[in-house]
Order: sequence, then C-alpha cells, then structure tokens
Amino acid sequence: MMASRALRGRSSLLRSVPSSATRAAVPLEARRRFSCSTRKMSSFYSSWEPEGPSVKTEIPGPKAKAEIAELNEVFDTRSLNMLTDYYKSAGNYIADPDGNILLDVYAQIASIPVGYNNPSLIKAAQSPQMIQGLINRPALGNFPPHDWADVLKAGILKVAPKGLNQVFTAMAGSDANETAYKAAFMYRRQQERGGAHVEFTEEEISSAMLNQSPGASQNLSILSFKTGFHGRLFGSLSTTRSKPIHKLDIPAFDWPQATFPKLKYPLDQHVKENEAAEKAALEEVEHLIKNYHVPPCAVVVEPIQSEGGDNHASPAFFRGLREITKRNNVLLIVDEVQTGVGATGKFWAHEHWDLPTPPDMVTFSKKAQTAGYYFGNPELRPNKPYRQFNTWMGDPARALLFKGIIEEIEKFGLVERTAKVGEYLYGKLEWLGEKYPGQVENLRGKGMGTFIAFDSPKRDEFLKRAKGEGVNIGGSGERAVRLRPMLVFEEKHADQLVEALERVIKSLQ
Amino acid sequence: MMASRALRGRSSLLRSVPSSATRAAVPLEARRRFSCSTRKMSSFYSSWEPEGPSVKTEIPGPKAKAEIAELNEVFDTRSLNMLTDYYKSAGNYIADPDGNILLDVYAQIASIPVGYNNPSLIKAAQSPQMIQGLINRPALGNFPPHDWADVLKAGILKVAPKGLNQVFTAMAGSDANETAYKAAFMYRRQQERGGAHVEFTEEEISSAMLNQSPGASQNLSILSFKTGFHGRLFGSLSTTRSKPIHKLDIPAFDWPQATFPKLKYPLDQHVKENEAAEKAALEEVEHLIKNYHVPPCAVVVEPIQSEGGDNHASPAFFRGLREITKRNNVLLIVDEVQTGVGATGKFWAHEHWDLPTPPDMVTFSKKAQTAGYYFGNPELRPNKPYRQFNTWMGDPARALLFKGIIEEIEKFGLVERTAKVGEYLYGKLEWLGEKYPGQVENLRGKGMGTFIAFDSPKRDEFLKRAKGEGVNIGGSGERAVRLRPMLVFEEKHADQLVEALERVIKSLQ
Repeated sequence: MMASRALRGRSSLLRSVPSSATRAAVPLEARRRFSCSTRKMSSFYSSWEPEGPSVKTEIPGPKAKAEIAELNEVFDTRSLNMLTDYYKSAGNYIADPDGNILLDVYAQIASIPVGYNNPSLIKAAQSPQMIQGLINRPALGNFPPHDWADVLKAGILKVAPKGLNQVFTAMAGSDANETAYKAAFMYRRQQERGGAHVEFTEEEISSAMLNQSPGASQNLSILSFKTGFHGRLFGSLSTTRSKPIHKLDIPAFDWPQATFPKLKYPLDQHVKENEAAEKAALEEVEHLIKNYHVPPCAVVVEPIQSEGGDNHASPAFFRGLREITKRNNVLLIVDEVQTGVGATGKFWAHEHWDLPTPPDMVTFSKKAQTAGYYFGNPELRPNKPYRQFNTWMGDPARALLFKGIIEEIEKFGLVERTAKVGEYLYGKLEWLGEKYPGQVENLRGKGMGTFIAFDSPKRDEFLKRAKGEGVNIGGSGERAVRLRPMLVFEEKHADQLVEALERVIKSLQ
Repeated sequence: MMASRALRGRSSLLRSVPSSATRAAVPLEARRRFSCSTRKMSSFYSSWEPEGPSVKTEIPGPKAKAEIAELNEVFDTRSLNMLTDYYKSAGNYIADPDGNILLDVYAQIASIPVGYNNPSLIKAAQSPQMIQGLINRPALGNFPPHDWADVLKAGILKVAPKGLNQVFTAMAGSDANETAYKAAFMYRRQQERGGAHVEFTEEEISSAMLNQSPGASQNLSILSFKTGFHGRLFGSLSTTRSKPIHKLDIPAFDWPQATFPKLKYPLDQHVKENEAAEKAALEEVEHLIKNYHVPPCAVVVEPIQSEGGDNHASPAFFRGLREITKRNNVLLIVDEVQTGVGATGKFWAHEHWDLPTPPDMVTFSKKAQTAGYYFGNPELRPNKPYRQFNTWMGDPARALLFKGIIEEIEKFGLVERTAKVGEYLYGKLEWLGEKYPGQVENLRGKGMGTFIAFDSPKRDEFLKRAKGEGVNIGGSGERAVRLRPMLVFEEKHADQLVEALERVIKSLQ
C-alpha cells in the first residue's frame, strides 16, 4: 500500500511536466546525510521509490496481454520479457500496466545506472543544453558543437580509464567494438607499411574497392574468447562466441577464438586447477597469435564474460594477457560494455587487475547511455581524416546524460557504495547457498560489487517464478542467474532480493 | 543586422529554459496562413530564423580556432568542417562561435528535417513522454514501454512505405542496413531448409560457433552497386563501394558489385545511351545473381546514390530491378537513409518509381533521427526469438522525436512544399548553368524536390569559397556539389543560395 501511494505521487508528478520541483522534493537534509554517511542507506533514494515490490496479477496480467497482442502486430514480441510502465517505475523498481511492481536486478540488461526516473536525470533532461542536443543532432565529425570539448571533459573523459585520454564516440556497444576493431586494423597495417607517412599503393586502393587483399585486410583478424559476447553486427558478431542462436545463418570472418578459463568454485578450494586453466588459456592465446592462419592484430576480452554466463578470471590472468599482447605487438581491447560504470565496485572492472600498462582501447556503452572507445596512443588515430567516420558518430544528448549520471555517481559515492552493498549481498547469498545445498551453485563475483551470479539447477523456471515473488531477474549462459542491480541498490534491496530468492528456491524443491 | 538581432532573441530564449512560450511566439495567424497557402513562404519559419546569412570573419574565425585546438586534444578534428554554435543556429541557418551565420544546405549531412531549434521540436523535447524516454532507456526487445505500439503507430509506422507495415528499429543507418541484411540471410536459409519449422542441424550449430559454413552462411552474399554507400560497419562496409578511404585496411566479405548506370546529362539529349546503360546494368545484376560464386540473397540499392556522387537512375531501371529480384527469389532492400523523409518531394524516394510490388525492406535514418528497416512479409521475422535482437534496438527518445517531425511535416505540408521549392530551385540552377557554361555541369535531380546536385570543375575550392559567401554546402563523389536543404527551405532561401553560388562561380573564373 505504501508502495502504491508513493508511486502514484511520482507518476502524477511526471505526467504534469517534471520540473526542478522534483529535485526540491528530496529534502536537502536527507541528501546531506546520505552523502556523508555510508552506514545507513534508507535516505536519498527511498524518497522517490516504493518501499518494496507488489505483485497483483500474474505477469503478464490482463492489461499487458492485450497491449502485447497489439504491439505484436507491428513489432516482434517473442523476446518480450515484461511490458513496462516507465512512468510508474521508480528507483530500483520496475512497474507494469497491471500495477505490478518488481524489484529490478536486471535493469534493462545492465543498462540503468541510477534508478528509474532519477530526479537528477529528470532535471538534466530538462536543461537547455539537453533540449538543444536532442533536437539539433550534429554530424559530430563535421560540425561538432562548440562546447563539445567541455561536454566530453566534464562527462565521458572525466571517467576515462587511467592512461587513456581520448575517445571515439559511437551509438551502442556493438559499433563501439567495431570501430575499435577498425582502429586496430588500420594501426597494424600502418606499422606494416612503415609509418603514417607511407601512402597507399595503387594495388591496395583498387583491391580495397573489390573487397580483396591487400587493400581490404583479409589477412588480419581479431582474436576473441569462447563464450565471449561483443555484439551482433557482422564484425562484432564474428568475435561473439556465446550462443548459436546469435550466429546461425550470418556470414562471419575467419577469426580465431581462444578458450576462456573455466574456473571452479569455491575459488579457495580449487587454486591449483584454476591456475592451470588460466595458464593453459594464456598459452593458447599466444599460440593462436603466432600460428593462426589469419593472424590477429588485436585481442578483445570482457573483464567478466557476461552474456556468456558470468565467467570470471583472475587479475593475474589479465596481467598475463597484457604481457602476451605487448610481447607480440597485438593490441588489447577491453570490452567494458557490461562491466563498466561502477557495478563491480570500481568504475571500470579492469581497475581490479592492477595492470602495469593500460589496455590499448576500452569500449563502453549500456550504463553510460552513450558509447565509444577510449584510447591513449595518438597513433591509434588513423593517418588520414575520414578513415574513422560516420554521420552521427554518437549522440550528444546521450553524452550529456552520461555527464549527469557521472555527477550523480560522484555526489553520492555510488561506486564505493556498490562495493559495500555487493559484499553484503554476496554474504547473504553464501548463506542461502549453505542453507539450500545444490540450489545456489558456483556463486561468483566476490569482491566485484553487485556483479554477482550463481548457477541454478532449474534456471529458466527459477527466473520465471522470481517474477511472482516480486523480482525481475535475468539469466546468462546456459545455467546462470545473473544479478545486475543498479548503482542505487542498497542493503535493504539486498534483503528483499534474498528473501524472494529463498521463496523461489523453496517453491522449486 | 536584422539577422543578428533575431538570433540574439532566439538564443537568450533557449538559454533561459525553453518553454511553450517559444511556440506561442509564432503568431497563430501566420501559421494558419502558411498551412493554407502555398503561394508565399515568408510566414512560419521566417519568424524564428534570421533574414539571411552574415559572414563576419574567416571561417574558422579566431574563437573557433581556439576551441578546435582544445577539442583536438581529445577528439579527432581533422574531418571538422565547421565548429557550430547550435544555440544560435535557427531554421535554415547554422551559426558558429565567431558570429558567422550561413545558409545551411548541407544540414548535418542531410540529417536536419525541419530546421535548427524548431519550436515544435523544442516543445516535443520538453514533453513528459520524451523526458521519460530519455532517462529510462529500455531494452526494447525485452522490456518495451507499454505505449510503444502507440509511439510506433503515431510515428515511424504512420509514414511506413506502402505495403510495409512492420518495423525493426535500430540506432543509425549502418546498423539499420546490417540488421536488414541479417533478416535477408535468415530468410533465405529458412527457405533452403524447407520452412520455419525445420530445426537447425548439429553441424550448422557447431560450425556457426566456428564462423564456418554451413552454420555461418559463408556461401551467401548481398549484392550492391559500384559507387553505392550503405554504411561503414563491417557488413555494411562490404556493400559500400564509394571511396577507397572508406574501405582501406578493413576486412570485407567477398560479395558482388554491379555497375550503377552512369547517366548522361541533360537527360533529354541522351535518351538512347541512358536506356542502354540501364539495360546493361540490369543484365549485369541478373548475371551476378545467377553466376557469382557467393550468390546474393538480397540486392541493396539507394534510390539516388548520394555519398557516391548523386547518381540517379530512371524509375524504369528500378522497376526492372524489382522484376529481376522477384524472378530470381532475391530480396530487394531499398536504402532510403539519405533519400527518405521528404527531400525528393515524396516522403520516400522510391514512391517515384511506381513499383508493381513494394520493396522487401526499406531502411531509414538521418532526417528520421531514428533508424530501422520496414518490412511487410511476416516471414521476414526470423523463425525464433532472439535471432534478431540487441540490448537497445533503437532509442525511444529518438522515435518520439520522429513523431514530432512527422507532425510538423504534415501540419505544414512540407513534402509537397519541397517538391515545389525544388522545381523553383532547379529552374534557377538551369539558368545559372546557361549563364556560366562549364561551371554547373550535369545538373541533376529534376522533379526530385530539393535533392539536386551538379558537378563543378573546381569542386573542393567551390565548397570552400561558398562559406565566405554565406552558404554551408557539401560535396559527394569526386566532383559533385550536393544540395541537401532541409524541408523548411523556401523560395527565398533558393534565391539566397543561387546568388551566393553565382558569386562563387565569378570568383573562380
């Protein structure tokens, strides 16, 4: 009841044109308390979200069913998970047209950073700068806004990974990765030619137009890992190795894949096996770099293979990967599309690795709400203009939103909070696993914020029943239940989540 | 002076949070006059844009130079054309930080439909629906907004090409094309398997994960045309054949290209040659469909090859292409990314062709501010969910903006207006060509709205000097000056443009 009332207030606020009053509705005192103290979380975010989930009908309920049928006439709804009422969603809670409210630990496939209808973002969305960026969409490479440098420096670049001070902006994770791959191909070919000043040959120019070597570099590749996911356009899909359904019938490049180490849990009981698995994987990478018939100019890797089932590897593995790529003059591209922006308890997951030198490129999207790749080496700018270019090259409105998100994250210390809340949540899940043997298997993500997953013996049924218990939750790989809460997920939400999971487990036994 | 004053008023309005007052500032009477009468254009749009261009410094001027240098530290500026002050830009006029105001007939590479800072779009950007769509970005395939069907039907689908009643939404032109290609590959392979009910074989599943046939369809291709442009991601770039600089060093698929007929101008003096060129091109297409060693499952074509130099073909050519593709069970994908949304005097350029059956897919982006592909045949939905899917699958905020753009276009009859203004402009350019022989060559786009181009003997210098004369104008191909005005381009703007072009021509002689 409390929940419904809070939501009604919220939604009427939104419907009557949101204003700066929204922000003012959050008492300054409460905000101060939140930012100064990390002991207790029931302050800032609880002021604009419901107290907890509320399940009123089956999901989808009657209203949703009718609307889904209507939508299906014009838009494929077979992958529809839950028809959503975004006006009524708030903070950590997602609502549907039938009045159901679920705690959302899937968050639009890990894409909502600071809660639905966050008051600060409502304010950012109303700024003249945002309105202008939304309606006057520039071709950023040709006609950048005069304040584009400021927007980048106060936003995307303010949180640039250490050692990477430049950015190429993009639309989503998939083209962020593909443009990074293109930069890698151009960089390697430039080295092979003898430098940026060396002109293309006539043969290169004419063969490129025929999609043939030497102009189109059919003799170079990108190495990725088995069960990795990097997007679903033709180039990125060639590096994606998660599931056949992603790849069937789509032409792909003949590029190599290495085994990603399959760690055994609990980690402290499998130290030697896991070390051996990582060593073997690294050897395979180096072997492929040296021997694959289409040699790689870059290796792309996720810090945690997310879509592929939340597969982790140790910092030592990634340091080894950096060493091997350096030694073989192969670029290292870290795909932080899902792991970036705080959920692992660091802003970028690769900060956990303590690398001696930074990755060559880091790609981002999802929680950033904008996309692109960071780089540091100026030679990664291709030697001529228009080699890396497209009409929009990103979206300034979305870049401005990321700036607002970063301000919110910094103001409330949400990355550090997520590290602590993650520890709390992990402890509770350990307890759950001990209480119900065989139900919470291979718990993983310790010390990685709320980026936690476990395997369930009846995963698909598990996810389905979770909705009935008030939780929206996603899967990944074959058996994983993946938790992807927002950065505003607090201890009290962890309590709600674990209570719901326990009810699901009981109902499945 | 008038111009500057009008702009100052405008910019201060924007800076102090735009409101519905902006809209009210346009007298209702003026708006009525505009929508009722098409004789005189000096009504609606002139109320919020300057009277004409105003060049105060060289471009870039001192302020722009300093800001470009700052931007270049973090963002490649070598393809920068003009640093832009979007706050001060209005209607058909683009402004820079040094106070220069140019008539803009390039319009962000053909991407601005109804003028900079259009009051109706400012209003749309302030709506609760827009704010909500901007800050609560959904994974549209999994968690569509409950009103998504309404947004589509009142927007993207309201203007769907005849016979195509469904849409798959995307981010930009490049991935719109690539997802259309993916749909084509899946459709053909489903036919080859014997229908949607036939399951994948074990061999298909395992080979797809290795990027090999039969799972990854290495034995199928997309046929495109020489000098065509369809985007710069790996799949779309494989069909792009415009310039080597777009393709060099980037791996590409072994897909076929056919010759696009190279028409001679004036058309009425080269009827037989042009008919022969189109016939030969069609024969080549059919030959490649039947004989290319990687057979095409689809042909992709632009109604007017834009990036490639504004190359036109006759409606008969496209009807022939439709017939050949039908006869050979090959899909026809019409890439309307640059030609769509009104500039040719029809909402979609392919409406000029009078096709007996619609194209199988039509892709869109640019002026739509959102992207995707339309289709009609339900079999183009892949046989299983998640085969055509990605996290965001477009952007509801951008889809809402397109809805606002469509409303503005319909309210003021802007497509019909563009047809008339185009006729007026074409006539003036014919006159200019006659007055300065050899300076306005191969004038083309008659009857195609303002989608007009001509060749210049000193093209690059021509474009550069145009800025000094108050016009921002783009090129394409090797020698073309391409005009891509907005849909709010009126006769008076045509006068300003042609006067400026005459000054440029004189200065070059």
